[in-house]
Amino acid sequence: MTTVRTVGITELALRDAHQSLMATRMALEDMVGACADIDGAGYWSVECWGGATFDACIRFLNEDPWARLRTFRELLPTSRLQMLLRGQNLLGYRHYGDDVVDRFVERAAENGMDVFRVFDALNDVRNVERSIAAVKRAGKHAQGTICYTVSPLHTVEGYVELARNLADLGCDSLALKDMAALLKPQPAFDIVTAIKQALPGMQVNVHCHATTGVTQVSLMKAIEAGADVVDTAISSLSLGPGHNPTESVVEMLEGTGFVADLDKDLLRRVKDHFAAIKPRYAQFMSSFSVETDIFDSQIPGGMISNMESQLRQQGAGDKLAEVLAEVPRVRKAAGYPPLVTPSSQIVGTQAVFNVLMGPYHVLTAEFADLVLGYYGHTLGEMDPDVVAKARAQTGKDPITVRPGDLIEPEWDALRDQAAGLDGFDGSDEDVLTYAMFPKVAPGFFATRAEGPKNVGRDPAEVEAERLAAAGDPGTGPLRMPIAYDVTVDGRTHTVSVRPA
Amino acid sequence: MTTVRTVGITELALRDAHQSLMATRMALEDMVGACADIDGAGYWSVECWGGATFDACIRFLNEDPWARLRTFRELLPTSRLQMLLRGQNLLGYRHYGDDVVDRFVERAAENGMDVFRVFDALNDVRNVERSIAAVKRAGKHAQGTICYTVSPLHTVEGYVELARNLADLGCDSLALKDMAALLKPQPAFDIVTAIKQALPGMQVNVHCHATTGVTQVSLMKAIEAGADVVDTAISSLSLGPGHNPTESVVEMLEGTGFVADLDKDLLRRVKDHFAAIKPRYAQFMSSFSVETDIFDSQIPGGMISNMESQLRQQGAGDKLAEVLAEVPRVRKAAGYPPLVTPSSQIVGTQAVFNVLMGPYHVLTAEFADLVLGYYGHTLGEMDPDVVAKARAQTGKDPITVRPGDLIEPEWDALRDQAAGLDGFDGSDEDVLTYAMFPKVAPGFFATRAEGPKNVGRDPAEVEAERLAAAGDPGTGPLRMPIAYDVTVDGRTHTVSVRPA
Repeated sequence: MTTVRTVGITELALRDAHQSLMATRMALEDMVGACADIDGAGYWSVECWGGATFDACIRFLNEDPWARLRTFRELLPTSRLQMLLRGQNLLGYRHYGDDVVDRFVERAAENGMDVFRVFDALNDVRNVERSIAAVKRAGKHAQGTICYTVSPLHTVEGYVELARNLADLGCDSLALKDMAALLKPQPAFDIVTAIKQALPGMQVNVHCHATTGVTQVSLMKAIEAGADVVDTAISSLSLGPGHNPTESVVEMLEGTGFVADLDKDLLRRVKDHFAAIKPRYAQFMSSFSVETDIFDSQIPGGMISNMESQLRQQGAGDKLAEVLAEVPRVRKAAGYPPLVTPSSQIVGTQAVFNVLMGPYHVLTAEFADLVLGYYGHTLGEMDPDVVAKARAQTGKDPITVRPGDLIEPEWDALRDQAAGLDGFDGSDEDVLTYAMFPKVAPGFFATRAEGPKNVGRDPAEVEAERLAAAGDPGTGPLRMPIAYDVTVDGRTHTVSVRPA
Repeated sequence: MTTVRTVGITELALRDAHQSLMATRMALEDMVGACADIDGAGYWSVECWGGATFDACIRFLNEDPWARLRTFRELLPTSRLQMLLRGQNLLGYRHYGDDVVDRFVERAAENGMDVFRVFDALNDVRNVERSIAAVKRAGKHAQGTICYTVSPLHTVEGYVELARNLADLGCDSLALKDMAALLKPQPAFDIVTAIKQALPGMQVNVHCHATTGVTQVSLMKAIEAGADVVDTAISSLSLGPGHNPTESVVEMLEGTGFVADLDKDLLRRVKDHFAAIKPRYAQFMSSFSVETDIFDSQIPGGMISNMESQLRQQGAGDKLAEVLAEVPRVRKAAGYPPLVTPSSQIVGTQAVFNVLMGPYHVLTAEFADLVLGYYGHTLGEMDPDVVAKARAQTGKDPITVRPGDLIEPEWDALRDQAAGLDGFDGSDEDVLTYAMFPKVAPGFFATRAEGPKNVGRDPAEVEAERLAAAGDPGTGPLRMPIAYDVTVDGRTHTVSVRPA
């Protein structure tokens, strides 16, 4: 090779890695110790916010997600901070009014966000227009996103058309997002090649999960095809339902004509940091390793465990195989949406309903909205019979306009509602927190003053409690003092031990 | 792509996978249920014997390794059975006389072995000559092996020369063996390409471990370069210090112009079988996931844990980093041998000695033999100072002849010795078992009639015992007293503890 091309790396440890591996439970205080090393390592960007982290902060950790963002900004002063934004859904599960979208992006930028990776679950660009415009207006980096999926209708040409449409919105870069680890090496090569040909000079980022065990190869092929940046997670927070290991991607490029110019000593320190932290979250860890069945069912790993628990609650734990077989049919009826939040939940739950109650006997409100166009349009046609059932059940008409167009400005109403909450601090950020999670935010505001709650646990302590509970549940977890005969260098002492 | 080339797959589940992941402890009875599905799945070969499995059978499982082989032959009637053979070492840890080598290969072939992958830890072809000739004489498939390593002296041209030398011995195929997961994608491509160019029509197999997280890509590159067969392990026994997942390699090839023609439904059944078995071996499982530090130290993962335990036994657990830094120096002094059984143990132990007692102050007998040429020649020159120390310490002269030439025929003597053992059954196979493991075989012969011992444990049972032991430490299975090394303010005491 005559020239060496540098490939950028986005580190996922602070967001998607712990979201995927340990149910988004990692507390900020368990990340701060790694920030200086991450900041110095030479990443293209550091993903650290968005996705489920906002929700988990207020739901489980009594932690203000905006304060988390400001802390990252302070601790990662030279890094591009990156977030994942669900277009018109922002970080919530419904479409928001354009005024709320504008305000959210403006506040996120103001609090320190640099790169906004904006996606829509249906790949409907109308749902990302407004947020991308807001990112541009804030002078930040707008990354338009292609959600990768597999269906009879999804083609390389289709992805290129989507890429063009996103580029037309003024995106600074494009991301190919493979949330379910379905992106095989050859499609990765073909899609990136075609986008690079269609849009010369456009930066292309590739995000893959590792679940199916093929996507490290896909990253290699994407790089060969011209991908500029790939997403990885530090090795101690990698693999399984997470991502390919940062250090392995660095190493795999040796001699190939590509290089990921990261500081290996700092990577080692970041690895060691999270290797030490990880055992504290064992209770939340996925036991999932590698799983290629996803290629047939196209169902992300996290979705399978959700469906399993839905089925068990209905006393139908034995119907999982039927539901897995139903999902592709439901997906077809809905025009082959990619399966990613929230479409994965909507399709999965409808599949469960179909198996338990008969095909489309009852539609969930969300699935009815989906087939009626209220989430946007999908690549395929909706099944007309199912659309008819949705109309009959809901009394709603199908729409073809941009869903956001139907939503009136709502900022003032949201501010008024938030203002009435105990602990509301008067900031736009608090209004946005309330807007995203109106059921969870009130409780969080009320308890915020108590400070963050770290749900990680010392494994030794967990074990001691378990053993104590099993040994003598009546007298509490620590049945101390305990007397031992201790022999030291041949001399025996009677020693009693109890907590200091 | 106009034509699609079929790539063969060697399944490792029955040998190297459980050797790497669970200390070779899997009992035959936990494999038999998968054999019909493996036999039908369409593998190029099924590795099922050799390596450490022979040793583990008689040392831990009270299982006759020859009976295991015959069982595989019966249960896998249409498969090529494959074994790993350490050249003149056979399955033991010393060189054997040529007559023993001949007899071993002849008996293995007679008991059902088809493909003999023959390697020498130093890549000295003189050490594989005899066994390869014996394989040819038995009418079986002789696979000559190149142990991959990285050093200032190891080049693509050197590997090609080795390949030519192995081809000259009449090998039916060649294996590129990457026991430490050091083979990065570009060298994989370059080496396979060069071998294919030098030896048109020669079948090339590639064996990689997964430890460093890069070798799935290396397999892809090797296939692109023309590799005919790659080694994988069914996903439920894959990754970590093991191998890349079979199903993932099958899937990654989709659309690439290559195909691994395996039956996916049967693979799923094999996966499910071992997923159910695996928890029974939790106590032996490596917790190791992905580790790229190996690229710097070049030390296989299993070797690090060995060295750690050697150091702890010497009260020098804090010296691991020093030892890891010493290993490359020792390797250089010994002419850059690949690190694989037995050279990995020999180099690693000498590095421990050097750190604890000063550089080459004491040589292990094995390391002295290594630098004096008694294991064969290495690519680099031996350090003359170290050779001088070895001569002085052992009184032995360096040799340059084939080590096997110095060993007198020994079959008759071994048969006489074996004949005196309680439980010896008179067969050549028993003589060979004794020859391989003269310290372990007598005990095994004596207890063989009791039948195989499955050391796998029901996880629920293990947990119940542990809880019971905690609740009532006096009568549980964890018998007191327990000895600890306790270090207080820098002074270490041996302390024994039991309930008062």
